[in-house]
This record gives sequence, C-alpha cells and structure tokens, in this order.
Amino acid sequence: MSFFERLKAAASAEWRAYTEHPFTIGMADGTLTEAAFRHYLVQDYLFLIEFARAYAVAVYKSPRLADMREAASGLSAILDVEMNLHVKLCAGWGLSPGDLEQAPPAAEMLAYTRYVLDAGMRGDLLTLRVALAPCVVGYAEIAARLAARPDTCAATNPYRVWIDEYAGGPYQEVAAKTRAHLDRLAELIAIFKEATRLETDFWEMGWRVGPRVE
Amino acid sequence: MSFFERLKAAASAEWRAYTEHPFTIGMADGTLTEAAFRHYLVQDYLFLIEFARAYAVAVYKSPRLADMREAASGLSAILDVEMNLHVKLCAGWGLSPGDLEQAPPAAEMLAYTRYVLDAGMRGDLLTLRVALAPCVVGYAEIAARLAARPDTCAATNPYRVWIDEYAGGPYQEVAAKTRAHLDRLAELIAIFKEATRLETDFWEMGWRVGPRVE
Amino acid sequence: MSFFERLKAAASAEWRAYTEHPFTIGMADGTLTEAAFRHYLVQDYLFLIEFARAYAVAVYKSPRLADMREAASGLSAILDVEMNLHVKLCAGWGLSPGDLEQAPPAAEMLAYTRYVLDAGMRGDLLTLRVALAPCVVGYAEIAARLAARPDTCAATNPYRVWIDEYAGGPYQEVAAKTRAHLDRLAELIAIFKEATRLETDFWEMGWRVGPRVE
Amino acid sequence: MSFFERLKAAASAEWRAYTEHPFTIGMADGTLTEAAFRHYLVQDYLFLIEFARAYAVAVYKSPRLADMREAASGLSAILDVEMNLHVKLCAGWGLSPGDLEQAPPAAEMLAYTRYVLDAGMRGDLLTLRVALAPCVVGYAEIAARLAARPDTCAATNPYRVWIDEYAGGPYQEVAAKTRAHLDRLAELIAIFKEATRLETDFWEMGWRVGPRVE
Repeated sequence: MSFFERLKAAASAEWRAYTEHPFTIGMADGTLTEAAFRHYLVQDYLFLIEFARAYAVAVYKSPRLADMREAASGLSAILDVEMNLHVKLCAGWGLSPGDLEQAPPAAEMLAYTRYVLDAGMRGDLLTLRVALAPCVVGYAEIAARLAARPDTCAATNPYRVWIDEYAGGPYQEVAAKTRAHLDRLAELIAIFKEATRLETDFWEMGWRVGPRVE
Repeated sequence: MSFFERLKAAASAEWRAYTEHPFTIGMADGTLTEAAFRHYLVQDYLFLIEFARAYAVAVYKSPRLADMREAASGLSAILDVEMNLHVKLCAGWGLSPGDLEQAPPAAEMLAYTRYVLDAGMRGDLLTLRVALAPCVVGYAEIAARLAARPDTCAATNPYRVWIDEYAGGPYQEVAAKTRAHLDRLAELIAIFKEATRLETDFWEMGWRVGPRVE
Repeated sequence: MSFFERLKAAASAEWRAYTEHPFTIGMADGTLTEAAFRHYLVQDYLFLIEFARAYAVAVYKSPRLADMREAASGLSAILDVEMNLHVKLCAGWGLSPGDLEQAPPAAEMLAYTRYVLDAGMRGDLLTLRVALAPCVVGYAEIAARLAARPDTCAATNPYRVWIDEYAGGPYQEVAAKTRAHLDRLAELIAIFKEATRLETDFWEMGWRVGPRVE
Repeated sequence: MSFFERLKAAASAEWRAYTEHPFTIGMADGTLTEAAFRHYLVQDYLFLIEFARAYAVAVYKSPRLADMREAASGLSAILDVEMNLHVKLCAGWGLSPGDLEQAPPAAEMLAYTRYVLDAGMRGDLLTLRVALAPCVVGYAEIAARLAARPDTCAATNPYRVWIDEYAGGPYQEVAAKTRAHLDRLAELIAIFKEATRLETDFWEMGWRVGPRVE
C-alpha cells in the first residue's frame, strides 16, 4: 500500500466528500450551470497562480537536486500547460488572461491557497508535498472516474473538454509522478529513520561498556 | 494626515463595514448571544497564535534593530498579555488553554491569518505591517468607541470586560505605537526615495557633461 | 541610463574588482591553473543549485504572473542549460553529477548563496532581483570582454569552452532579459510611487476643504 | 544519553575544534590581544542580530504554542539580555550601539548567520533548532570550562566579564533549557513516528483481511 493510499485511507470521509462532490457529477451529466462552472474556472485560474508559487516553494525547500527538478517540472506543468486550458475556455466567454488575473479572489480560493503556502513555508518538503497532493492527484482521479461514465461522452456535454484534459495521458502522468515522488520521499524518510536508529544503537553498544571520560 | 489615516481614507467603506459591524454594537448593548461571542473568542485565540507568528515574521523581516525590537514587543504583547484575556474568559466556560489550542479552526480564521502570513512572507516589512494594522488599530478604535456608549457601562453587560481590555490604556498604547511605527516606516521610505532621486540626479549631472569612457 | 547602469555606477569600484579580477584574465590568456579552475567550477555547480533555489524564491515573491514566468524561465535556464556546461566539463575530470552534488561546500560559496537567499526571502522581488543581478549580468559582461581578446581564441586555450558559453547568444540574451526585467521592475515602482503620490494629493485636495465628520 | 549528547558524539571532532579553540584559551589566560577580542565582539553583536532573526523564524515555524513561547523567550534573551554585555564592553572602546549596528560585516559572520537562517527557513523547527544549538549550548560549555580554570580568576584578566556572563546562572539556564527543548522535540518525533507506525499497522491489519472495494 503506497504512502498516498495510506493518506487517503486515513482521510477517507474527506476524500470522498471532495472527489465525489455533486459539482463533479454535474460536469459528467452536463447538468451543472454554466455560471457555476465559469465562477469555478476563473477562481481556479487564480488558484493555479498560487499553486505555481507553492511549487516554487517546493523547489526552494528541496534538499536534493532531483527533488528540485521534480518540483520545477510541476511548476512548468502549471504555467506552461494547465493554465492554457483555462485561457482557452475563458476566451469563449470573452475573458482575456488579463481579465482572469484581475478577477476578484473568492474567500474559498484565498483560504485554500494561503493555507497550503503557509503549511509549505512553515514545514519541510514532505509537508508541502502532502498539502499539494489532494489537488494534483484528486483531479486525476476525479476526471478518470467521470471519463468512464457514458453520459460524459455525450456530444452535447459542455464540460467534456475539462474532463478530457484531466483524464488525458499527460495530466494522468503528472499525477502518477506526484504519487511516486511522495512514495520516494516517504521511503527516504523511513530509510533515514532506520539508519539513524541503527547509528544510535551502535553508539549505545559502545556506551554500555563504560562511562564517558571527559 | 498620518500614513494610517490615509490608508483608512483610501479604504473607508471597508473600514466602516469592519469597525461598525453589528457584532460590535451587540457587545456594547449586551444583545449579542453568548454562543456567538464564545465562537468568536475561541477562534480569536487561534487567530492570535497565527498573529504572533506574523509578528515573528516582522522580526525576521526587519532591516534595523529598532524595527526588530518594535516587532518583538508586539509579539510579546500577544503571547504575554492579550491571550490572557481569552484564557480568563474561556475558563468561565470550562475551556482550558489546551482546549482552545485544539479547537477546530474556522474557515474565516484560516483565510484571514494565512492571507496575512503569505502577504508578509512574500513582501517586505511595510507590506506586512500594513496587513497587520487593521486588527491592531481597528480593535483599539472599536473598543474606544464602544466604551464611550452609555449602554456599555451597564453592570449587567457581559461583554464589558472585553471592551474594557481593548479600550484600556495598555492596549490603546500598543495601537498608538503601531500607528506611529507605520508612519515612521512610510516616512523612512519617503526620505529614502527622495535621497535616491537626488543621488540619481547627481549622477545625471555628471553624465550630461560627457560620454562614458570604458 | 538604465537602472542596472545606475547600480553599476553606484558600485563602480566593486564592479571592477569583480569583473576584472585576475582570475578572468587567467582564463583569457590560458595561464590559470587547472586546479584553480576545477575548484571554481565544482563550487560553481553547488552555487547554481542555490541560485536555482533563489530563482524559485523569485517565482514565489512575484506579484504578477508575468514576473512569475520571467523567474521560472531563469530557473529553467540554470537547471536545464547552464548546469550542463559544468556536467560536461567535470566529466572530463571523471566527476559525475552525483560527485559534484556531494562536493564539500566552500565557505565563500556558502556565504554568497545564503546571503542572496536571505536578502531575497527577507525583502521584496526587486531586492532579490538586485541581489541576483551581479552574477547573471556580470558573467555576460565578463565573457563578452574576454571573447573579444585575441589570446582567448588560441586553439590551445583550455578555458575557451567556458568563455564561448557565456559569451554566446543564448546566455547574452538571458542577461539582456535580466537587465530589461530590472528596468521594468524599477520603472513600475516609479510609476506606482507617482500614482500613489497623486492619489494622496487628490485626497488632500478634498481634505483641505473641511474637517472630517465622524 | 540525551539527543544533544548524541549530536555532539556524532560530530565530536568538530565540537572539540570549536569549543577548545585557542581563542577560548586566550581568554582564560588573558593572552588574547584586545584587537582580536574587539573584532570578535563587534562581529558577535552583528551575529546576535541575525540570531535574533533566526529565533523569530523559530517562533514562526513552531507547530504548538509551547514551542512558540520557548522560541520567543530565546529571542528576548538575545535582544534584552545578551546584547547588553556587548553594548557595555564596546562602550569602553567608545563604540555606541549605533556604531556596532553599522560595523562592516565580516565574511565569516555573514556565512554562518545566513547558513543558519537558510537551513531554518528551508527545513522544519527541529532542523532550525539543531542549527542554533552549537552556539547556544557551546558558549555555555566553553564558559563553564574556562571559569573553572585558576588563571581565569586573575584580577587582571580583561576577559573575565565575558566568561562570567556566559558561565553565570542565567545563561547556563538558557543553555540547559535549549538542551531540554531539543530533547523534547526529538522525543515528540520518536513518539509521533511510533504512533504513525502503529496506526499504519492497524490499517494493514484490516487490509490483510480482504481487498479494497471501490
């Protein structure tokens, strides 16, 4: 059972409330109002700007070059790929990227993004990565589930482009990498803990033979 | 007109909505329900923990020792004085400091405190001080106004202890110092700007005489 | 005169000491010992890791999406391009990227990189950008000057690959962008200052007419 | 064996090089030149300003109120007590606090303080506390050892006031608290690790019984 699966199991009620929210069903069957989707998407654009900042904090916090590269690729995935979906969809409503950046921030967006940024700046890299995971991995899981529903495929479903994007290969790979990276970080910590414990035992072994000479 | 007065003038609608909120009138005339006050006070305790962290960021950000001491005294005012009021009032409801620290955080408290912490960590000291000001100075202003109302003084008003604390000398002095410190920071910036402009002009003066020799 | 030119003029003695250091002449005429160059290059690899972290802080500190993209491209230029030169040159000495990452850090490298990271985390984006500028722009200037010397072009010059890299089009463009970005930041600040002053005057204009009504 | 003793044991060569440096012997027998001591003390004043900033970061990083209070008392110990010794001694050389704050920073001071600040901002609270420990605990150990030497007590020893300060009760107590706090943090981590492991085992126990139903 992977580290991420354990986190999900430990927070199963919250995970279901998030990934199976009526909003997601409304996208699958096309019953979600455009106004609701539009409000969400504009705020999600502002959200992505802050999440890009959080990935930058992950680069800053990384103790090893490999972690830095991993975080830098997450940053690039947001700025260079994911935001394009929002720009494209919002252009259909006559909203320019500049309009999006100037949209009044919703309290929910502020609360979520600043919580993640604060947790990340305060704690270490694993803490930050855990705070980022529900978004990255959850979206992949949600979209994959929705894409498998027959009603999603209806030619008239206006939310199909959103679902296809997150259910598509490139995004699913980003989420898979995130899960694998979390596992690697958690495993490294386990190895470090074990090695530290063994180091300590080694000292203790010598210590038991006789008292310390100043 | 002080720097703080200018900020207030520039945000006058928001300032009134905050300082003249019905919640404050309810404390003055004693009509606020205990449940509402209690929910507020428990969240305000969690809020103060985060604000103490924000004052610590102000110490960290300070470019001069005098600014550090100013911020450190703000930190101490929260940890060593202000929180005692909350502990005392909450003890009356059978809540220990440990209960308070473990209370589930409200979304509004998370949103506000993390916004301030993020703005402060991202920007410079003045930015952080400006983000902290509405709380520190606003509470002093609110309590002073409420204390001047006749209904506040009724012996039966259960919120008098709260009003007396923030209308009292020590807290009013903290707020006055905060306003003065903001003025000093803003003034230093004005002086620095002017000196920088003059320095630049001085270079320009020499520059106009002839071209640069490599 | 650009903002960067002004900074250079204000720190002209230090700028010359840095850009015209004997070490740079030794690379141009090939008289620098390999041991000295090798020590420098290994430490410069560690330096680039920290500078990549500093660019990540610039992404985090950016108030606008355009600044974030600019900083993210600086981060990518280090991780995806500049470090390859070091990897390639060090491979010639039998040093793997892993060996480089594990090299004991020199005190000078620690002092410089941590100073920049601290200045950047403490101050705002312009402060950080100014702290990063001597490296980015200075290297372009140094390499361009060295490349113009006849002795640099000698086929036997072992440092030609280093000089060619930093004198080459791609790196010169990075430096030019950095200078332009600094100018834009400084200009925005000037505009913001002016607009703020005018806003204030506008309030003052109204204020002079009559006293405030509570 | 306490956590701090383990750290010392794991870094015994470095610890001896630091705590038994000739500089410390020179203070004990009074042979250290005044110029050397003065240079050290002025830089130590600048060092303390940065260490106060690092304690502020510890307040900011603290996950619990008790850790915040502990860190805030460390901050106050520097700003309100320790720096007074420097101010008093430097006044004897005609240096005001303003002169001290304006003294040109030595590269060694910059390297050390910025390394600690970066390690602390990048990692979690324990990382920061470990980076702060050599200074706080080491000075107490050094001064206690020097105070026990007969030559230290000579009425003519000009460094006795320094030794008395750090060997004295208040400072020794600060160091003892620091050691105890490190132990508590490390113990909490051990407890947390164990509880986490047991939680995981509990999930695993249930998991082994049957496969997950989606």
